[in-house]
Parts: sequence; structure tokens; C-alpha cells
Amino acid sequence: MAEDRVEFDLDAAVQDVERLLNTASAAEALAYIAALHPADQAALVAELDPERRAPLLPRIPREALADILDYLEEEPRRAVVGELDPAVLGPLLDDVDRDVAVDVLRGLAPDRARTTLANMRSAAEVTPLLAFEDKSAGGRATSDFVALQRAWTVEQALGYLRSYKPSAEQVFYLYVIDDERRLGGVVSLRQLVVAGPERRIEELMTPEVVSVHPNEDQEEALRRVQHYNFVALPVVDEERHLVGVVSVDDLMDVAEEEATEDMYRMAGLAEDETLLRPIARSVAPRMSWLLLNLVTAFAAASIVNAFEGTIERAAALAVFMPIIAGMGGNAGIQTITLTVRSIALGEVDVRDALHIVRRELIIGVTNGVTIGLVLGMLAYLWKDNVGLGVVAGSAMLLNMTTAVTVGVLVPLTLRALKLDPALAAGVIVTTFTDVLGFFFFLGLATLMIDRIA
Amino acid sequence: MAEDRVEFDLDAAVQDVERLLNTASAAEALAYIAALHPADQAALVAELDPERRAPLLPRIPREALADILDYLEEEPRRAVVGELDPAVLGPLLDDVDRDVAVDVLRGLAPDRARTTLANMRSAAEVTPLLAFEDKSAGGRATSDFVALQRAWTVEQALGYLRSYKPSAEQVFYLYVIDDERRLGGVVSLRQLVVAGPERRIEELMTPEVVSVHPNEDQEEALRRVQHYNFVALPVVDEERHLVGVVSVDDLMDVAEEEATEDMYRMAGLAEDETLLRPIARSVAPRMSWLLLNLVTAFAAASIVNAFEGTIERAAALAVFMPIIAGMGGNAGIQTITLTVRSIALGEVDVRDALHIVRRELIIGVTNGVTIGLVLGMLAYLWKDNVGLGVVAGSAMLLNMTTAVTVGVLVPLTLRALKLDPALAAGVIVTTFTDVLGFFFFLGLATLMIDRIA
Repeated sequence: MAEDRVEFDLDAAVQDVERLLNTASAAEALAYIAALHPADQAALVAELDPERRAPLLPRIPREALADILDYLEEEPRRAVVGELDPAVLGPLLDDVDRDVAVDVLRGLAPDRARTTLANMRSAAEVTPLLAFEDKSAGGRATSDFVALQRAWTVEQALGYLRSYKPSAEQVFYLYVIDDERRLGGVVSLRQLVVAGPERRIEELMTPEVVSVHPNEDQEEALRRVQHYNFVALPVVDEERHLVGVVSVDDLMDVAEEEATEDMYRMAGLAEDETLLRPIARSVAPRMSWLLLNLVTAFAAASIVNAFEGTIERAAALAVFMPIIAGMGGNAGIQTITLTVRSIALGEVDVRDALHIVRRELIIGVTNGVTIGLVLGMLAYLWKDNVGLGVVAGSAMLLNMTTAVTVGVLVPLTLRALKLDPALAAGVIVTTFTDVLGFFFFLGLATLMIDRIA
Repeated sequence: MAEDRVEFDLDAAVQDVERLLNTASAAEALAYIAALHPADQAALVAELDPERRAPLLPRIPREALADILDYLEEEPRRAVVGELDPAVLGPLLDDVDRDVAVDVLRGLAPDRARTTLANMRSAAEVTPLLAFEDKSAGGRATSDFVALQRAWTVEQALGYLRSYKPSAEQVFYLYVIDDERRLGGVVSLRQLVVAGPERRIEELMTPEVVSVHPNEDQEEALRRVQHYNFVALPVVDEERHLVGVVSVDDLMDVAEEEATEDMYRMAGLAEDETLLRPIARSVAPRMSWLLLNLVTAFAAASIVNAFEGTIERAAALAVFMPIIAGMGGNAGIQTITLTVRSIALGEVDVRDALHIVRRELIIGVTNGVTIGLVLGMLAYLWKDNVGLGVVAGSAMLLNMTTAVTVGVLVPLTLRALKLDPALAAGVIVTTFTDVLGFFFFLGLATLMIDRIA
């Protein structure tokens, strides 16, 4: 019976390798690494201390190192590439997946990219992919795919597959092209196996192929693959030339990136921020976000300032200010998170605006009345002041209603303007709930100051 | 040349179908729908008004309706299933993917599930999958997969594939089992095509197969598929019996669900909340979250209350309160969002705590000093009050330092306690920054009240 595959324990493997480096030899550490699955090798290499890793890298056989690059995540891959001798990198990139090679080249300084490309046998195949933008469908595409000629017979196609020896992943879909590399259809390997050897590929193929244009956004490729439940998508230019293929494992990374981007944008983080990045690169973007927030905070403060006289007469108002503003903010964040994510998942769009506003308003008013009553009652009991209870409760209801309205309308408006609905979502909604919350609360308090002070 | 596939326009298709229903006949609307790709049919059916959809459904041929169910998202699928006659549903579920059938049955009331299952030919194959929990690997698995016997020759295997006619997706990996259905290895269709017809499957197969246990969390299956870049993962029990296969398109849904869950948990939304859900089901969970927030808001308010005397002497302090608390909250939300997401993506874990705290503290103090200086200066210029400037600036620095510390430690602590790091992340961090922000600011102001008032 086959060996049960033992679950890979990254922490233990890192310790093992470090122990071997300390007590045995680099050769033994390399033998240990070589026995692992390439995906596990990559995870291990990513975790190793750069000072211990750098001398090991040149001693890993080129094909194994290429596999490791294929599996490495972007951030550690950049670090590993940085530790490699430029003369080694070019030939190495010939052996990695075409889309990974393109990503690596794109991350290099222009000079180094040029030298590396000059050292690559596959430069001619990689260069056209380099022309596409990083986050476009073309930028995610690989040119490692199997294309069959439409005029071939099944036997010719199978013979081609036997000689070409593609990887299992490359033959999920077999794309059919004509003499000018124009995409004409798709067949599956199963169809070839089942069909008679004399049948022609063009008789078997499905002529309608869903594809993506190289300049379309990678998100568009993702959306299409998810919609049709494909595992790969051909990338086709205006003349339907097949320029590459995007595979589902790359698109899975896209899905994660897009979710991360939304979360980060809502919180005002740079979309490529990570806890692994050098501090110096993180300070400036976060600082500029906070400085922008400072401007909006002064907007809220100036409302309070306008009512300073009221607060002077009843300092107890200051106690309830953060409750009104904060609770409105919380309700608004709920609605805006839900709206941003629902747009991202394609569940709702601008056409649903009326329906969603109505829905959230009903929820906002229901919750606003309840929370307003509870707050009003507590304020009255705490401060033994009916006027304060009435003002706090009413301001709470008004602010919650504002919060859900803003929470729906801000992302939908950004979407209608073709901007990212997640853009600064958090700070926009809390600015509204702070400014209006203070205005409602202190404004009502000023009107009823004789009942409060 | 093949027709270029025109991009599907959902809105236009919905209008077309509605127009056909209004001005022509249901038969013409059905013919229009039938001409679309099943994925597009599903999107269209999901958008149709339920009152127009319900009478159409029984007139869609069973196989086409089964395809539509395969492609429908969970929420509209539940609606469509609800509109179907129970006598129709059983035989229909025989034709949908096994994992979809299981999902549908799981969503039915127990009585209806029992009746439906009784009407299914494939009840015996579906029932074992029903035993697994919804969000487990087993709960995501399908029993539609191709298993080859290890003792077969390549010729026997190809003959089996010809007679069984699996879909293209089912033959990405061919799992190899023994007489007792125990998983022994995996071969690819390409290997079969390339090998001689007399070779035995067990000679060709890769004996080490990465698998997942049916009771493991679906996230574990996702993690493994992403780590190894697979497009499917076999689900195997303690005795290595092959019970099902999870495919990458299902795991893509898992990745989206998990990201949604994190975003929603951070904002205090129920993880299955959607803008498409009946309002009544959304009010209670959101209300209980807001009531919990009200408790934390009173914590902040009681700090202000303790300093009411100070505010009475200098009402201008109330103007700066929201700035100190709000800016601390914004900085804290940045750090906590980054930490929660980095944990979810497996980039960092509890072992990295020291490193991350140090990193975020450096950023927090750098930004705190800068924002503190700016705020202090602005406060001084606005109110012509040096004491106020010093107090506001110092409180800002202290609160930002607190914010980043809490932002890192809260998710890491939750993670160490085996809880979800995203749990209530937003409100925890803002409670800290409100409570401590007011305490720092009003506390310092009390100490220096003679320089301020």
C-alpha cells in the first residue's frame, strides 16, 4: 500500500534544517530539502534566515530551484531572486513557468531585467508577455500551454502530446488554433481519447470559447472563470490570436489579492502593504492617510467648536458626544462593509440602489429607534435629566439613519463613477457620522438648553 | 472561423426575457433562455422576478434545469428550489452535481429533505456525504469522480473512460484505488495517453497523494490546494477510503467566503449576512452587535464623565476629544486590518508576535510623533493656548502607540486562543482607543488645567 503522506510541518522543518546547518553540513541540509515536495521546499526556503539561505541557493540544482520559484509567494520570491547571482538568474528563469518568469522580470530594476533577459533562451517567448500590465489578464497569462492545429487528426494530436510531454496542468483544456495562431475552439484530452484516430480536431472541438483580452483587468478574468467554473481561460487579442492562458491557481491568487485590496482600502492601507515589508516603505503611505484623516477630524471638531457655548453651560453633553458619534460610526461601518463586499462579489450593483437603500433604511431606523430609546433611558437615569435623555435618544436615531444611508450611497456612488467602492470607505462614513452626530446632538441640545442645563 | 463569443449582458438578457413574456409567449422566452450557456442561464434565472420565474421553471427540461442548479449561487439556488414542486425536485437532484445535491438537501426542512431523498435514484451515493458538516472538507466533496483500479492495464483504464464518459473536469486527476476503495495513488490522463497499453496503472501512478480528511475544515482543504497548486483534492477517511473529491471551483468559493467572513466579523456582521436576505433576519444580529457596542461606548463615556469637572473649566477640551479618539481609532484599524489579513493569508502567525509588535510600534511612534506635533501646533494656533497644544499633542502620541499595540496583540491573542482573529476586531480596537484616548487627554488636561483654563 502507498505510504500515507505525512502532513508537512513548516516550523519543524525550519528547525531541522537549522540544526543540520549548525551540527552537520550544508550538504546534509540540502539533501533534507531535496526530499521534500517542491511546494514544501518553497515554504521552507521562504522561512529561512536570509543569511543562512543565500549560501545554500547556488548549491540547489537549477531545476529544483526553478520549481521552488514557481511555488514561492511574491514577497519571498523577490527576496530569493535578490540573493541570486545575475548570471545564474537568466538560465534559471528559462526553467520556471513562463508567467512566473514574467513576474520576476517585472520586479527587477530595468538594468538587471535587461541583463537577465539577455541571458535567457526563452527571451522571445517571454518578451511579448512583459508588455502587458501587471494587473491585466495578459500580465497574469503564461505562454506554456498546448495548442493543437485545427487541421490535425486525433492521431496527430496524440502524437504531438506524446512528444511534447506537457505537464498535467497544461492539458486541462487543449486550445485549437489555425495557421495564424487564431483561436478557433477547444477540445479536452478526454475527447481525444474517446474519438477515433482519424477524426479531425476541428470536427471535435467546441467552437465557442470564452476568452479574455490581454488588456482587460485580471478581475475580469477571475469573474469569467468563476461564472463558468473553468480552470483556465485563454487570452486572445483583437484578431483572436492566442497570446496566453490564465490558470485557476493564478486567479485564486487574484481573488485573494482583490479581497485584501478591499479590506486595506477600507482601512486606508496601501494595497500592497504587508507585515513583511521593510518599515520604511510602510511609514509614508500610512502617514499620508492619517494626515488626511486629521483634516476630516477637524471637520468634526469644528462642529463641536461651534457649540462650545452650549457645552460650557452643560458639560455633561461631552459625556454623550462619543456615544452618539461612535454608535453611528459602528452602524455605518456595518452597512458600508456589507455594500462594498456585495458589490465585489457581484451580488448587487448600481441598479439595485433603491432596493438596498430602502432595505438598510428600514434596518437603520429599527435599530436607531431601539438604541435611541435605550440610550435616552440610560442618559436620563444616569444624569437624572429628562431633556438630556430626549436629546441623546433623538440624536442617536437621526445619526443611525444617516449612517446606513451614507453606508449604502458612498460605495454605490464610487461604483457609478467607475471608482473602487472600497476607496477610503471607513473614513468617509465615520466623518459623516462624527460631523452629523455632533451636529444633531449639540444642535438639539442648544435648542433645549433650558431643559438640560 | 469560429464565431467570436459575444460577452453576456445580464441586464439586457433580463429585459429581453421580460419583453418576450409580455409581448410574445412563455415558449419564446424559454427558447431564448435555452440558447444561452448554462452559466448565463443561471445568472438570468437568478435575476428574474420570482413571480415570473416560478411558472417558467417546470417547463425547463430537466437536464437543463439541473445544469442551472449547478451554476446558481447559494442564495438564488435556495429561492429556485423553494419554487419547485417536491415531486420534481428528487429526480432533478439525480442530475445535478453530487456536491450541489448535498448542499440543496442540507438547506431543506428535514421533512422535505426526507421526501426528496426518497425520490432520488442516487440516494445511496448522496447519503454518506450528507453526514459531513457543511463547512468541512467532506461537506464540500462530490462523489462524482473517476477512480481507476490499481490492477488495471492502461488499455482497461482507457476503455473504462470511454464507456463512463466523464466530464472534462472529472478527469483532471484520475485517482487509483484498490479492491476496498482505498486510495493508493494518482495518475493523469496524459500519463495514460503516453504510456503503452499493457502497462499497469500501479506502475504509472504517483503513490504519494496529498489528501484531506472529511472532518477537516474546508479552509484546510483550501490551504492545501493553494500550497500545492492543485485543481482538486481527494477526501480520504482514517482507513484511506476515497470518499469524495473537492474541486478548485468549490474551494474558490471557500476562499471568498472566508474573506467575507473576516470582513464581516471585523464589522460585527453575521457571516452569512447579505443584502439579498429578508430584512427580518438581518435586524436581530445587527441589533445585538450594536447593543454590545453601546456597553463599550458607555465605558468611554464614563471616562469623560470622571473628568466632567475639567471640561466645565475648559469647554475647548470637548473640541479635541473626538480628534484624539478618532485618530487613534484610525491608526488602530489600520494595524488590526493588516494583522487579521496577514494571519488569514498565512503570512504571519503567533510565533512572529515580537517581530510584528516591534515593527508596528516603530511605525506607530513615528506617525504618533508627527501627527502629535501637527495636532499640537494646530490646537495652539486655533485656540491660542500653549497648554492645550501640549496636552493634545502628547495624548495623540500616547493614543497612537496604544492603538498599534492593541491592533497587533488582539488578533494574535485571539489566534493563540484558537479563536477567530477577526472576531469583533473593529470594536475592540476602537474601545481601547476611545477609553485610553479620553483618559490620556483629559487626564493630562486635569494635571495642567491651570495652563489651559
